[in-house]
Amino acid sequence: MKIGVLGTGIVGTTIGARLAQLGHKVMMGSRSATNEKAAAWAQAAGENACHGTFADAAKFGEILFNCTSGVGSLPALELAGRENLEGRILVDISNPLDFSQGFPPSLTVCNTDSLGERIQATYPELKVVKTLNTMNCGVMVDPTLIPGDHTVFLSGNDAEAKARVMDLLAEFGWQRKNLIDLGDISTARGPEMLLPVWVRLYGAFGNANFNFNVVRAEQTPA
Amino acid sequence: MKIGVLGTGIVGTTIGARLAQLGHKVMMGSRSATNEKAAAWAQAAGENACHGTFADAAKFGEILFNCTSGVGSLPALELAGRENLEGRILVDISNPLDFSQGFPPSLTVCNTDSLGERIQATYPELKVVKTLNTMNCGVMVDPTLIPGDHTVFLSGNDAEAKARVMDLLAEFGWQRKNLIDLGDISTARGPEMLLPVWVRLYGAFGNANFNFNVVRAEQTPA
Repeated sequence: MKIGVLGTGIVGTTIGARLAQLGHKVMMGSRSATNEKAAAWAQAAGENACHGTFADAAKFGEILFNCTSGVGSLPALELAGRENLEGRILVDISNPLDFSQGFPPSLTVCNTDSLGERIQATYPELKVVKTLNTMNCGVMVDPTLIPGDHTVFLSGNDAEAKARVMDLLAEFGWQRKNLIDLGDISTARGPEMLLPVWVRLYGAFGNANFNFNVVRAEQTPA
Repeated sequence: MKIGVLGTGIVGTTIGARLAQLGHKVMMGSRSATNEKAAAWAQAAGENACHGTFADAAKFGEILFNCTSGVGSLPALELAGRENLEGRILVDISNPLDFSQGFPPSLTVCNTDSLGERIQATYPELKVVKTLNTMNCGVMVDPTLIPGDHTVFLSGNDAEAKARVMDLLAEFGWQRKNLIDLGDISTARGPEMLLPVWVRLYGAFGNANFNFNVVRAEQTPA
């Protein structure tokens, strides 16, 4: 599959490298066609990897991964160009974190709205699927880093888009039973609002090697 | 131990009954000394149970459980009376849910503040320990309803108060390894902000028989 990865940070390079390793054709997009980080990533990721502008990557990919920062997401999509986003699935991994007041970050949007919803509302051309934003990027692409069962949430309005993203998650190694479809894109508020406890757990543990698991009773308790 | 339970709803009656069953002396507090729900609860809960006003319960208990609703918490403490709260540990189970716009509820406070912090700031006489607010009340008092490991978070400024609350949680059946001390009361934002995903999981599953488990890697991934 042809996939565009928006963003050159640790999330973008990790996701992009894994997709290329799995045999997908991956173009990393950034503000500049000559971005040095993107060029270095493409060099390291091998023959399945290339890079270009946000617009190049949006044109290239059937599926796009939004690996930009929370504040960078809408600007990146604007640079990608509305005409290049038509019909694309956008896997939105971003979190609307505000580090301007230091640690812990707050959220720039939450409670009655979410970044996932804002992206979907701004770009109705996209099929936004919010997922993977509740864990470290190493865990996103290799769930076996954390022992046993643990959860990845999905939110989005388009059932077929969610099904295709679930297939990609299965390629990453996720077991189907650990994928939880929360519902439409408005449910993205929930996973985005997990970040405040995530950052405190990171503080308490001193590392990001954890994930949330939703454990269900097998039978209805009396 | 003498314990005051503030609130006569399903959380208060469940917590109160379990504490009485464990041999603690429990007074349920409400707005009225003749509250019929409190009287019925005390009748059913046996010789360890009694009821009175919020002020009566605050005077009675070394430890108080805040089992009122989010909007009812500060009013209940005001009725309890500042002079009766001095030195008390307040186990704060409340969630600042706003159902005024229907389902799903939003939060009346979040992101840069929390109800736990507001209670602590309003009543410095109290040692507030935020905990148990991230699960159904049946699970709070009997963690075996959910199979395997799952998590209860604690937030509070007073280490000794948190240790005493951990002892009570162990009496409820919680394994020590599943108690996570997030830090001071400002960390209560995280668990309170779990409610939006909790209510969506409740919607997706159709029942409340689940809990969050934080799963950690046993060794640092390479």
